[in-house]
Amino acid sequence: MTEPTSNRIAIIAVHGTMDLAYPPLILATSALALDMEAAIFFTFFGLDIIKKGKADKLQIAPIANPSMPMPVPNIVGMLPGMTAVATGMMNGWMKNANVAKLSDLLTLAVEGGVRMIACQMTMDVMGIKKEDLIDGIEVGGAAAFLSYASQNAITLSF
Amino acid sequence: MTEPTSNRIAIIAVHGTMDLAYPPLILATSALALDMEAAIFFTFFGLDIIKKGKADKLQIAPIANPSMPMPVPNIVGMLPGMTAVATGMMNGWMKNANVAKLSDLLTLAVEGGVRMIACQMTMDVMGIKKEDLIDGIEVGGAAAFLSYASQNAITLSF
Amino acid sequence: MTEPTSNRIAIIAVHGTMDLAYPPLILATSALALDMEAAIFFTFFGLDIIKKGKADKLQIAPIANPSMPMPVPNIVGMLPGMTAVATGMMNGWMKNANVAKLSDLLTLAVEGGVRMIACQMTMDVMGIKKEDLIDGIEVGGAAAFLSYASQNAITLSF
Repeated sequence: MTEPTSNRIAIIAVHGTMDLAYPPLILATSALALDMEAAIFFTFFGLDIIKKGKADKLQIAPIANPSMPMPVPNIVGMLPGMTAVATGMMNGWMKNANVAKLSDLLTLAVEGGVRMIACQMTMDVMGIKKEDLIDGIEVGGAAAFLSYASQNAITLSF
Repeated sequence: MTEPTSNRIAIIAVHGTMDLAYPPLILATSALALDMEAAIFFTFFGLDIIKKGKADKLQIAPIANPSMPMPVPNIVGMLPGMTAVATGMMNGWMKNANVAKLSDLLTLAVEGGVRMIACQMTMDVMGIKKEDLIDGIEVGGAAAFLSYASQNAITLSF
Repeated sequence: MTEPTSNRIAIIAVHGTMDLAYPPLILATSALALDMEAAIFFTFFGLDIIKKGKADKLQIAPIANPSMPMPVPNIVGMLPGMTAVATGMMNGWMKNANVAKLSDLLTLAVEGGVRMIACQMTMDVMGIKKEDLIDGIEVGGAAAFLSYASQNAITLSF
């Protein structure tokens, strides 16, 4: 077995949908379990993931997502309520498979020492204040991410 | 010319749309051609790419995709059948430009030795069984991906 | 402080929406400011970012984006004009926060020496010619990206 060349993972979370909030948190917490370091940079809609009380309310949209296994054409996906139906369905499957809730993964990440960086620029643009975010978040810019990511890191974005 | 520091590529495929199925398969097979190793981790809707008989039926949605060069406002994109129209249009362009079909790229990837990993958790969540997937797929978790990706890899996700 | 192991960033831009055009350009120009090298590979809808006169006209869609902070159900997002409303709103916020326009970031990137590579295959597929693109763009394939990315690079895709 060769020695690993990366001992940390640096992730950018750009989206605020339920399905795309899982990969950063699962990878970061899995990295901790493998004795790696981890950081997540939350930017644009990704900031939604770390807003207080928001994680378990993130939605998945059935529209424009041809992979969503729902027998609905776009026109039906349009009906008010279908996003909620798709989200509820997915949440039910997650629970049945004993997948942790997003809020639990967030707690695991923060308590396990994942560096959680909220994008300063996005906060300025969207008028988000630090007190709108969960505890344990640091505020920073692209330079903070690049500096962390330039040291032997696996780098990914979702 | 400096010696390359990465001799493998580790890709995560999260989406099940036609346009986002191409980059992982093109990059992985291009990597083989450059004598690099490659692995793709298929998770969430990305599992659709490796379902039996599904690759060439993946769709692209005209809705909510302002870049799709179709002269249709969202309200028209809603009409049943527009997703099929957009997909057919794109498939036609691909064929005219002699781009390989997704099923051909999958075969090339599997036969060329790309490590194809299906996400165990997603399979549990969505009730997908190994026999629902094409041949040559290994089932694994985030740790399998991280372990592969931590050894001199170019890492990307789509 | 440990010596950085990566002195360049290699980014793939796959999408042509306003919100996903920013991260590649902000990261690449931030990398320059940190004395790192940068390259962006524009592929699929990402080519829209470097089409002449197009950058500042890229749109963001309110539909199928549950994170877009608009109090509209999908059915309303459908109405012709809502994409323009969402885009205008976001552009206004950006301007208020003194975020550079995409066209300015493009100029900064090209003049600062970011290697801007347009995907040959996508150009063939979509019938895009080099003269349709802004100045300072090189045309290349996946191999060009992989070759650049395999030398001590932070690698990301948006």
